[in-house]
Amino acid sequence: MDPILIAVICGVLGLGVAAFMAYYVLKQDQGSEKIREISAAIKEGGLTFIGREYRILAIFVIVVTIILGVVPSLGWWVSVAFIFGAICSALAGYIGMSMAIRANSRTAAAAQRSLNQGLRVSFRGGAVMGMCVVGIGILGLSILYFAFHNNPNFLFIIPGYGFGASSVAIFARVGGGIFTKAADTGADIVGKVEKGIPEDDPRNAAVIADFVGDNVGDVAGMGADLFESYVDSIIATMTLGMIAAFSITLGKPLVPNMATAWFLPMLVAAGGIIASIIGIFLVRVGEKAQMGALLNALRRGTFSASALTAIFSALAVYFLCARQGYGFDIFWAILAGLIAGILIGESTNYFTSYAYSPTIRISEASQTGAGTTITRGFANGLMSTLPPIILVVIAILVAYRFADIYGVAIAGIGMLSTLGIQDATDAYGPVADNAGGIVEMSGLPPEIRERTDALDSLGNTTAATGKGFAIGSAALTALALMLAYALAYTQAAGIELTDFMASISLLDARVVVGLFLGAMLPAIFCAMTLNAVGKTSFSIINEVRRQFREIKGLMEGEAKPEYGKCVDICTKASLKQMIAPGLITIISPIVVGLILGPLALGSFLLGAIATGFILAVTFSNAGGSWDNAKKWIETGAFGGKGSDSHKAAVIGDTVGDPMKDTSGPSLNIMVKLMSIIALVLAPVLAGFPGLI
Amino acid sequence: MDPILIAVICGVLGLGVAAFMAYYVLKQDQGSEKIREISAAIKEGGLTFIGREYRILAIFVIVVTIILGVVPSLGWWVSVAFIFGAICSALAGYIGMSMAIRANSRTAAAAQRSLNQGLRVSFRGGAVMGMCVVGIGILGLSILYFAFHNNPNFLFIIPGYGFGASSVAIFARVGGGIFTKAADTGADIVGKVEKGIPEDDPRNAAVIADFVGDNVGDVAGMGADLFESYVDSIIATMTLGMIAAFSITLGKPLVPNMATAWFLPMLVAAGGIIASIIGIFLVRVGEKAQMGALLNALRRGTFSASALTAIFSALAVYFLCARQGYGFDIFWAILAGLIAGILIGESTNYFTSYAYSPTIRISEASQTGAGTTITRGFANGLMSTLPPIILVVIAILVAYRFADIYGVAIAGIGMLSTLGIQDATDAYGPVADNAGGIVEMSGLPPEIRERTDALDSLGNTTAATGKGFAIGSAALTALALMLAYALAYTQAAGIELTDFMASISLLDARVVVGLFLGAMLPAIFCAMTLNAVGKTSFSIINEVRRQFREIKGLMEGEAKPEYGKCVDICTKASLKQMIAPGLITIISPIVVGLILGPLALGSFLLGAIATGFILAVTFSNAGGSWDNAKKWIETGAFGGKGSDSHKAAVIGDTVGDPMKDTSGPSLNIMVKLMSIIALVLAPVLAGFPGLI
Repeated sequence: MDPILIAVICGVLGLGVAAFMAYYVLKQDQGSEKIREISAAIKEGGLTFIGREYRILAIFVIVVTIILGVVPSLGWWVSVAFIFGAICSALAGYIGMSMAIRANSRTAAAAQRSLNQGLRVSFRGGAVMGMCVVGIGILGLSILYFAFHNNPNFLFIIPGYGFGASSVAIFARVGGGIFTKAADTGADIVGKVEKGIPEDDPRNAAVIADFVGDNVGDVAGMGADLFESYVDSIIATMTLGMIAAFSITLGKPLVPNMATAWFLPMLVAAGGIIASIIGIFLVRVGEKAQMGALLNALRRGTFSASALTAIFSALAVYFLCARQGYGFDIFWAILAGLIAGILIGESTNYFTSYAYSPTIRISEASQTGAGTTITRGFANGLMSTLPPIILVVIAILVAYRFADIYGVAIAGIGMLSTLGIQDATDAYGPVADNAGGIVEMSGLPPEIRERTDALDSLGNTTAATGKGFAIGSAALTALALMLAYALAYTQAAGIELTDFMASISLLDARVVVGLFLGAMLPAIFCAMTLNAVGKTSFSIINEVRRQFREIKGLMEGEAKPEYGKCVDICTKASLKQMIAPGLITIISPIVVGLILGPLALGSFLLGAIATGFILAVTFSNAGGSWDNAKKWIETGAFGGKGSDSHKAAVIGDTVGDPMKDTSGPSLNIMVKLMSIIALVLAPVLAGFPGLI
Repeated sequence: MDPILIAVICGVLGLGVAAFMAYYVLKQDQGSEKIREISAAIKEGGLTFIGREYRILAIFVIVVTIILGVVPSLGWWVSVAFIFGAICSALAGYIGMSMAIRANSRTAAAAQRSLNQGLRVSFRGGAVMGMCVVGIGILGLSILYFAFHNNPNFLFIIPGYGFGASSVAIFARVGGGIFTKAADTGADIVGKVEKGIPEDDPRNAAVIADFVGDNVGDVAGMGADLFESYVDSIIATMTLGMIAAFSITLGKPLVPNMATAWFLPMLVAAGGIIASIIGIFLVRVGEKAQMGALLNALRRGTFSASALTAIFSALAVYFLCARQGYGFDIFWAILAGLIAGILIGESTNYFTSYAYSPTIRISEASQTGAGTTITRGFANGLMSTLPPIILVVIAILVAYRFADIYGVAIAGIGMLSTLGIQDATDAYGPVADNAGGIVEMSGLPPEIRERTDALDSLGNTTAATGKGFAIGSAALTALALMLAYALAYTQAAGIELTDFMASISLLDARVVVGLFLGAMLPAIFCAMTLNAVGKTSFSIINEVRRQFREIKGLMEGEAKPEYGKCVDICTKASLKQMIAPGLITIISPIVVGLILGPLALGSFLLGAIATGFILAVTFSNAGGSWDNAKKWIETGAFGGKGSDSHKAAVIGDTVGDPMKDTSGPSLNIMVKLMSIIALVLAPVLAGFPGLI
């Protein structure tokens, strides 16, 4: 039996579980009339946004498809792979979001029964997304494998799939990220700061837009991000499989032949799907469970999935390598990635949870005002880069020692193999957040809100670890893609990899300038996305203010605001603002490659990965810790809600919001997208090695 | 005649001009009794701080001297060079600060006569610093040259001088930076925000500490920074001179022999001294001049100095190279650096002055609160990395094309050659700032304060361009040092440079992890320095609050605060807090070199240079633009002083202060210090090439 069939079976199984979860969620009670009404508004807003977004993306995809087709060294098969990747990514995002916008009202209704019921509905809603991402991802790659593995250009065709997935991801993440944070800060600034009304108050015109944002940003955006990491890391490893088989640099063979080297990443990923499914079913607690039990249940799920993945990987290595006398070396590389991923998640939690001193010290600093709050939080974000970088460094060194640069790539797959359950816990958060909002808006009693708040707070913890995991895996994936690019370039140009290695030297001026330019790009990208959120939220602020001013009786609760207006403004503005950062990301590696040549492009990628990694961690963790520092004060510390400390902490949170939910996460996609473009571009550069 | 004698003559001339300027300043009227009293307090605080600081540094220097001496591959001559470098740097900082703390009261007195008189005294006070830095720098190097140029280990001895200078610089910059910003934010938060009293109000206990901070941070710290860049860039170029003479990589000779390659940087620097002297004397305006004329006078000075430097450099290249048939190639490299330096300064001005839209948009954003102000300013800082990176990239490409990696190093000297006048305009700023504070505190009429405010605002403009220039030159210098390290390592290890080039490949795992670690270090360093300012200002805030609470009649102006207490707290805290970031900087390249080996150390440096450059520009320009956005509102825009916009802008300024005056500028020294440590370490690593 072709080992890829195992991957196909696992993929189908993943989709089957997704269907089962979807069925479970959909048959739940939808709650009162009021809840249905709010949910319908969110659904409409989300679907409108994603519809318009996909229409813009369709134009982009068609243009790129044609370009790829007419470039002689690429050709139409690359176009086919590209368009297929784009569709798969869009599909995964669409299904996940469709589910999330249906699970939110059902979670609100379930929370009326018990905490555990609320957890079950929201987590299963999130699991649909997680399972779709891995199921579609691996099935798509399997289809490509069957279609093209006998094509001599297989190596150059398959990156097209990743390019398609990455392109959709950058626009989805940036557009969704701008939408969600512009609506959120807009609602907060007018509602909480200016008018002094609570969060999610129905009088606030931006509140529905805020709920919509959670779905289009944190569900669809995050899903596209992880889908991209997943398929890109497999593609990079497949490309580097040539080294594993031929051992150009290593001097010892790792696997019997190239086909086996390709099967390995697919099987490790497939094992991860099974492990994730088991992990997801382990997330269950007794009917009367409290917060601590919920958190333990989630952790039990993810840790079990990790342990099982390790076992399945060992089996895959045993059958494909060890049994044929090639040893277990690759397994250690996979394990290094897997463990590093878990620890990065834990470190993120340490730096952003108010259970630990870094965040508490930010709350403390807010006693001396917003200035010190922000400085402290920003310093915390910068400091939090230490563990992830050290962990990735150790994983790289271990992986490299055992399996050369193939090891680095497959360590990335090890880190990503439990993606099914990781994404489930990530997507669960916004569902619970939405449910809480719906409870607040529909005027349900405070004890229900307390339950959804508990679910939401749990979601924040899982989101923090999930973000760390997404960043770490993005860095490893991008690095693997960069290495794959070097290999693909030397293949296409017909030069020895060792020669390319020798010339991509840090003492070469082109390499140095490539590195500087690459290091700069994430900074520019962040500046653009931060400004985009600023501009969009500015229009939201003005609209909410206008409605309070012009709609009579709104503040008194006698009239209803025009929610649709805010959703519409957010949609238009965020779709407009997502284009420039997306295009810059796509165009710059092409420009660097064509003008400064293939060496500069390699160092450009590495520079972007390094600063992208650092800025992403800094932004995510600074933002997360400001958010939780505010929450810590809201529990009554340092003066509690309404105190001056709280006001300062709210400002910190406002600063952190676009950093942690727009710019930071988009950087992950940015570095992967640039790297996969380089990989796609490799055959072109072989015939056109730069102007300088 | 030995060409180095020309350098000696120019150095002596520089010191002569410094003496003349000092004489001019000292014979000025010291002003009223009140002014003298304030000035005496500042003087005492400054001298106490620097005395204690130098005592700590003395211990550090002695320990390092012994270590360098006993390491077999280094030896006592390196120790001698190290201690000599440390003394020269400390001396330059001490003289400059001594002058600045005497020029402030005299500027206040002169401003009572006219704006022009004020400018003359303050600028000449600053010029003492500028001339001392270049004079001592070049004389020190000349002495080393005469002492050691026949020693076969000259190449390994001379970096010790730079190491000494850099070590003093990091502690001076970090310690001074913490002092100045802790005092400043402490004074602002209690004074302006909590008590609503104006800046520099005599009732504020931290006000003298704030004045002292300007001198120890912005004068002594900046001087040590630029002194370091100056000598380090010459040392790097001397080391790389071997390539210019032997043309290992270039294939064509640039200069007749190694000695000439060494003379060239000295002569270019010497030419820059003469050019700076002429420029300084060109800074003069009519007795009734207004602001515009003052700015033009300063720009005339710096631009003339640049043009003259270009001419002198051309002459040096003509006599040392072209006349012997070796062409003008090196001149183009020098010119590339010189022009890039000027343009980087201009771009900094664009991003931070309220004459241009980026800063005005930050003022505008403060209408929607502190959160949007901060996001906007931060995005502006990130965006402002574009021109400096592009300019440095172009300078590197041009320099490399004409003169290989020797060209990159000498482009750094080209950029730094006008340091004499650049540092003069930099050091002038804090003198004018201090003078303004003295005017305010001694209760002189508002029209005098207006004059010193005009001088201060001019100082902010020159400080902005000066900072851009310091960052750009630091990046080029560090890069040259990194290249010099590679060369010195291959020399010591007896391997070919081309072999080392081939192995320091971006596809090597050690190189990649070195790069990641290096890229992380500036982030950690910034986190530490930001936190240090936070902690120190926290104690200042508490002390000022305590005095307002406990000293009866203080708020009514009937009693005097205990200024000395705040100075003392600042001194103790900042000296304590400067140690950890300084030691981390010194220890990490040693650890990376010894554990991960020479290749990883090379990429470690490059990673640190890349993120260090980006963070330094971002921090400096974000901070500068917040400061000026606040000033723009104070001119009456968006509600003017006291409005909500103004309050938001003040918070932005508080956030920006430690970024632009502590963390940002310290990064310059950090990357240079790590690079020169690598250079010093090269012979050690040759015998001990890493554990991994």
